[in-house]
Amino acid sequence: MTIKIDAHIQALPATIPFVAPERTERESGNQFVARLGANENNLGCSPNAIEAMARIASQSVGQYADPENFSLRRALCQHLGIEMNNVVIGSGIDGLLGLIVRIFSSPKDTILTSAGAYPTFNYHVAAYDRTLLTVPYRDDHEDLDALAQEAQKTRPAIVYVSNPDNPMGTWWPAKDIENFINKIPEDTLIILDEAYGETAPEGTLPAIDCTRANLLRVRTFSKAYGIAGLRCGYAIGNSALILPFEKIRNHFGINIMAQAASEAALKDQEWLMQTLETNAQARDRLSAIAIENGLKPIKSATNFVTIDCGQDGAYAMQVLKGLMERRIFVRKPMAPVLDRCIRVSTGKDEEINQFSTALAAVLKDLQ
Amino acid sequence: MTIKIDAHIQALPATIPFVAPERTERESGNQFVARLGANENNLGCSPNAIEAMARIASQSVGQYADPENFSLRRALCQHLGIEMNNVVIGSGIDGLLGLIVRIFSSPKDTILTSAGAYPTFNYHVAAYDRTLLTVPYRDDHEDLDALAQEAQKTRPAIVYVSNPDNPMGTWWPAKDIENFINKIPEDTLIILDEAYGETAPEGTLPAIDCTRANLLRVRTFSKAYGIAGLRCGYAIGNSALILPFEKIRNHFGINIMAQAASEAALKDQEWLMQTLETNAQARDRLSAIAIENGLKPIKSATNFVTIDCGQDGAYAMQVLKGLMERRIFVRKPMAPVLDRCIRVSTGKDEEINQFSTALAAVLKDLQ
Repeated sequence: MTIKIDAHIQALPATIPFVAPERTERESGNQFVARLGANENNLGCSPNAIEAMARIASQSVGQYADPENFSLRRALCQHLGIEMNNVVIGSGIDGLLGLIVRIFSSPKDTILTSAGAYPTFNYHVAAYDRTLLTVPYRDDHEDLDALAQEAQKTRPAIVYVSNPDNPMGTWWPAKDIENFINKIPEDTLIILDEAYGETAPEGTLPAIDCTRANLLRVRTFSKAYGIAGLRCGYAIGNSALILPFEKIRNHFGINIMAQAASEAALKDQEWLMQTLETNAQARDRLSAIAIENGLKPIKSATNFVTIDCGQDGAYAMQVLKGLMERRIFVRKPMAPVLDRCIRVSTGKDEEINQFSTALAAVLKDLQ
Repeated sequence: MTIKIDAHIQALPATIPFVAPERTERESGNQFVARLGANENNLGCSPNAIEAMARIASQSVGQYADPENFSLRRALCQHLGIEMNNVVIGSGIDGLLGLIVRIFSSPKDTILTSAGAYPTFNYHVAAYDRTLLTVPYRDDHEDLDALAQEAQKTRPAIVYVSNPDNPMGTWWPAKDIENFINKIPEDTLIILDEAYGETAPEGTLPAIDCTRANLLRVRTFSKAYGIAGLRCGYAIGNSALILPFEKIRNHFGINIMAQAASEAALKDQEWLMQTLETNAQARDRLSAIAIENGLKPIKSATNFVTIDCGQDGAYAMQVLKGLMERRIFVRKPMAPVLDRCIRVSTGKDEEINQFSTALAAVLKDLQ
């Protein structure tokens, strides 16, 4: 006799949204020389955060962390000008997306996103037995008009939009996002994913307005702040949207390092400004390398540059494979049309040098 | 118009399994002088683990951790003599319990536990809309016979047992647990929570047998290993029980510090042996203090001592409140009969001194 597994879960495939570079390294027996595939900040994080981690390691790592995440939430409130009941901390945006799907929809409900957008969101939608509905990108942007029209037509429980976008790196100015928000039915929850908000040009993020009853914005310390390994993200919204998290979240789940290091990182805005400058320079360099090699970089507001390889998805896959074989870890969009591209994170100078050399060699091999 | 919230979640209270000491400190404006309420290892962790954390903080905290938790799983397999597909890592046992309820039962299914056992398990059961069924403790032990009888009668989806037990600190020898396991219907999943397995006497933990098709054992690095703040636990079982986790878990959710520090801690068994000795001495001291004050310590296999205050639950609550007012953080069981006790974690010598002084004063006040 086999043990009962919830029927829906039983029917799911065992899957993972992203293959880890560590797996590729184990399978190939080779370490990557450049880690440019996961949109991490390879420059690390604020020394304040490192100091906070060292303090925790030697003093209080044996203690459970504050389940109310009070100190970090207070710091975020001061930083953002919001109230304590307008923010909830999660295990990265990934953890929050799972909770949001679970809270704000029910089995079989429809959830709307763009075809080719963040796979981990889709993973949670499937895992909770919701129905995914997609509209295609337009001109490498999430198509706000098409998403709004589809939302008006199908009235999904949730619509998920990222600004700036991943995997294309494109973005909309704040006023376009605000127009989009205003067009979404009031009974559809909007998830506005701003994981790459810090690296975007001024005027990209709408002003925070927690009176909006159907908007949750999610942000993270994994990208610009450089502590992806700790898993710390947060959702901002109306208190009526934040309260339900308290009913089901794993209260003691946010680790003590994440709480302390995130707060310390937040309080070092000077370091953030420096890393944003370095990131912008690296973005320019990646774009220049693409052009030098006859490829087309897509203008990016993120910590990566998505590069149009100029042919079809099969060709871009060849480019990706060539780079991976040369021990350059990059990833690529997989949805039709977007799949003509590879996606390269801003990394350290020496990593970008390695990428540059490898790209030229790969393209030559493919001629 | 208000946004839709899943009807079951909407009906839940906003609750938390445990009030954090940090909240009490914020509300009282006073810091605790002894933190003896959460069964943490106040001696911290292995220097190996501290070194691993420092390395991560300065080198790789900006990277997402391996979602397959490969290195830690391999170390656990070597340590336990099991295969890679017999173990899954979670965000502490708390995180694993949520996943287990979600995978191995469906809404409205019955789940069996002991009345007064671990509240976080009950929290997940309620949060996933399952029905909790309980049997009382007997003589301060989880009543294995009554649990087995109830399981045979009601055939619950899951039965949850801890050995050693929390909050009473009592335990059963391995052969009694094995007999219990053999009596449970084959289509009921047994969760055997061994969070306090390391501190128990030899002969408490049954030999690991991953051929058993309905048994998951959960363990943690939060107790004896002293890294509760990092959130790292694991489940051991038949590969058919481990596989479904891959379908729904947050793959990138286990933070990089937890993975590295847990592995380093596991590899320092010498430190573990030392801390177990210190723990046993502290347990003896707490028991002696209880006896000196005319109270009855319950023999413990854990890192805490549960103390029978000799009267009813209201009286024990007065003792607890008196200790808390004297800035000694302790907790107490809340279920009838068990509630005549307070629960005191083994801490540092100076913390136990503080507890000793405060307890005598509290009991004098209550005379």
